[in-house]
Amino acid sequence: MYTFPHKNILDADQFTQEDINYIIEKTNQMRILEKQGRAFGLLRGKILASLFFEASTRTRLSFESAMERLAGRVISTVGFQFSSISKGETLFDTMKMVEAYSDIAVIRHPIEGSSRIAGAAVKIPVINAGDGAGQHPTQALLDMYTIISEKKEIDGLTIGFIGDLKYGRTIHSLIKLLRYYKVHLHLISPKELYLIDSYKKDLEKYPITYEETGDIKAMWECDVIYVTRIQEERFPDYKEYEKLKETYKVNKEMILASKKDTTVLHPLPRVNELSTDVDDLPNAAYFRQAKYGVFVRMTLLCLCLGVEIPKAE
Amino acid sequence: MYTFPHKNILDADQFTQEDINYIIEKTNQMRILEKQGRAFGLLRGKILASLFFEASTRTRLSFESAMERLAGRVISTVGFQFSSISKGETLFDTMKMVEAYSDIAVIRHPIEGSSRIAGAAVKIPVINAGDGAGQHPTQALLDMYTIISEKKEIDGLTIGFIGDLKYGRTIHSLIKLLRYYKVHLHLISPKELYLIDSYKKDLEKYPITYEETGDIKAMWECDVIYVTRIQEERFPDYKEYEKLKETYKVNKEMILASKKDTTVLHPLPRVNELSTDVDDLPNAAYFRQAKYGVFVRMTLLCLCLGVEIPKAE
Amino acid sequence: MYTFPHKNILDADQFTQEDINYIIEKTNQMRILEKQGRAFGLLRGKILASLFFEASTRTRLSFESAMERLAGRVISTVGFQFSSISKGETLFDTMKMVEAYSDIAVIRHPIEGSSRIAGAAVKIPVINAGDGAGQHPTQALLDMYTIISEKKEIDGLTIGFIGDLKYGRTIHSLIKLLRYYKVHLHLISPKELYLIDSYKKDLEKYPITYEETGDIKAMWECDVIYVTRIQEERFPDYKEYEKLKETYKVNKEMILASKKDTTVLHPLPRVNELSTDVDDLPNAAYFRQAKYGVFVRMTLLCLCLGVEIPKAE
Repeated sequence: MYTFPHKNILDADQFTQEDINYIIEKTNQMRILEKQGRAFGLLRGKILASLFFEASTRTRLSFESAMERLAGRVISTVGFQFSSISKGETLFDTMKMVEAYSDIAVIRHPIEGSSRIAGAAVKIPVINAGDGAGQHPTQALLDMYTIISEKKEIDGLTIGFIGDLKYGRTIHSLIKLLRYYKVHLHLISPKELYLIDSYKKDLEKYPITYEETGDIKAMWECDVIYVTRIQEERFPDYKEYEKLKETYKVNKEMILASKKDTTVLHPLPRVNELSTDVDDLPNAAYFRQAKYGVFVRMTLLCLCLGVEIPKAE
Repeated sequence: MYTFPHKNILDADQFTQEDINYIIEKTNQMRILEKQGRAFGLLRGKILASLFFEASTRTRLSFESAMERLAGRVISTVGFQFSSISKGETLFDTMKMVEAYSDIAVIRHPIEGSSRIAGAAVKIPVINAGDGAGQHPTQALLDMYTIISEKKEIDGLTIGFIGDLKYGRTIHSLIKLLRYYKVHLHLISPKELYLIDSYKKDLEKYPITYEETGDIKAMWECDVIYVTRIQEERFPDYKEYEKLKETYKVNKEMILASKKDTTVLHPLPRVNELSTDVDDLPNAAYFRQAKYGVFVRMTLLCLCLGVEIPKAE
Repeated sequence: MYTFPHKNILDADQFTQEDINYIIEKTNQMRILEKQGRAFGLLRGKILASLFFEASTRTRLSFESAMERLAGRVISTVGFQFSSISKGETLFDTMKMVEAYSDIAVIRHPIEGSSRIAGAAVKIPVINAGDGAGQHPTQALLDMYTIISEKKEIDGLTIGFIGDLKYGRTIHSLIKLLRYYKVHLHLISPKELYLIDSYKKDLEKYPITYEETGDIKAMWECDVIYVTRIQEERFPDYKEYEKLKETYKVNKEMILASKKDTTVLHPLPRVNELSTDVDDLPNAAYFRQAKYGVFVRMTLLCLCLGVEIPKAE
């Protein structure tokens, strides 16, 4: 019998296909339990330490909401409030403190690899909520869950990634989950922002297939598109950024011209790469995505804490 | 039969006299329930998003306390923590996220009209906790409730407003509630800070009456005075501010000289327009006002969420 | 029969030996209750106002965790969020507001004596979580409790204080608790940082004895050492600080060379006065100290609120 083998959620890489399927199955249960009012109480008496060494309102509130929906409690701190850090405390020592005060921790940190250090320091579960240019595995899981919820099945889908494939952390993490499935990818980006070779090389070992293009019209072949912001802060040259960001924009007209019933995902926040005139289309799944994220995180909190999620009736 | 018709609390203008009387009646019930320990539990399992795009400790803690007193949960964020906003996210998108994470939202925002935009963006109830120079309706309701609690009845009262009647947001909102009642107002302020004409014109259609004066001694005719701070930030010329702020000060001597048993309200924080030697007088209602505020907000949270407030026994 | 006589926890000075013994006894009970899952619920429906006028993540999270472990609720605010203060509000007025919103308050403030002002302003209990160069009584109690938990008994112990004895607030507070017991102190510090005379003079009236030395090897005579950081911010001359901080360092080699089974305490955060190679020794009690701190604070929250802590079975 399968048992969820992970204490920590640190990296999309850590999951087998069996893990992913299990998380999705359990999230489906959780979603029904929540609807029936039976989720509240599952983590009664447990405390989540919400540790945001850099601000990320969306992710923080999503985790805190997930914990509260289970009747758990939250102690929370954000960036500039880490007075001990400013006194020179190491992350190891900070985590030893956190371990004394809580049952599980979520950590967001500007430096890649921080969550691994945090997880190794303590016996309580640690969930990576994004560390620098590194991983953001719960985002990947909620993206995956969104696709399944919207399309029923992953196998057979054509999925387009649009925008910044070179630096886009959420894309890298999501591809690591999708690679186990019979999925075809359109990697749509300017050459300067192509997915880096090591990621592509990795895909060769898996059922997933892909093609690369600079032409945004490739989105018309896709069942799902995942649109991302081209982030100014990644570019040393502002002019280069300005030019690229104008090229990759998705709007209503583009969606309606698609050959397929294209579902639109976006990790948010968006700026102008995704037009607001898409919002009213049934294709727009990015606001529903936020809701799915809470269910996924409720599930992960329970799984990491070893709390059984009852069968939905 | 009357049913509370509002999803959102955005503007004191939105209330009919029937609404106001209903809120006051329900707050009276809530106050007894709280005393009997029966309020705790009314919002169990509900999550309040406390969204303070600008800091306002008093209002934020009052709402969060109200939610916790009902056994509800709070997810909270203040100004500088809105990382998504700094990335260029619109209020509409922020609210779509909040909708996925919570059951009701309280919003404080520096820009007038923000709460209306927020309320229109989502299906969950939105309560305006002050938006720029605009409205602060829950403050008005708690002021109103304070007057009733201290004086038993509104009709027949003479009420003085002292200080900054031109820019004073709390005064504008409170007058919009009082206008339905047989109340006489003394509008006591320097000419430069007189209540603006549109507000006065509006009053002509209602039972309320008023007179204007620059003489602070008019407070001696009042059953209730509402003292406000003359805010430096409203004045381009600092000298003008200095001169005016010295003129409108209330102290113990002034209260004791009153012809009536004058009850003193103040929205707080005060600076030097209200002397601390008033604090020990039974007339000083401004600290009790903070307590009444929690009852009013507990009531509004329940009403907006459609949760019935049981009859007190 | 003994009844805990304190509404407020402001100063280690306020406790008699009987008080201290009672707190320790009750903390022992609380620790068992927590283990049995019976602590959760003791403060259901109560609200703690967590008021950190300056940041102190460790202390804040410890108190908030303690409150949540008892099923209490927390409303929280840190430094820069005190918008009312920036508008010129006094601490007295702020506390009057807090009194309306909560059942008990914890206050951290940069100015010595602030917590006393806060406690006098309101009827709800106030706990001092550190005020400037003044007191930090709950830290002293948790240090005391750590010593007892690690060594079973206080009487007969030789305890070394190492580092900054002149400015070290936690040391001053702890000595005030230890003075009632048959304890011998080694005060180990550079001459510039000797314990000030008034503290030493005070000790003459009590069973406690002490000797002073500049030689860190005196730690080898100690059952317990309490290591503290030499704080840069206390020194006008940076060079003087640099020199002193190198002299008083504790590492694994030093611990293993001790004549006794020396238990190591540290209030944390540490910088380089306590080497990480000590962490794996059973002597290292400083991470357990954080856990004990939660039990002590759970106990104090109940005692101040007059909530009985049931006998552990």
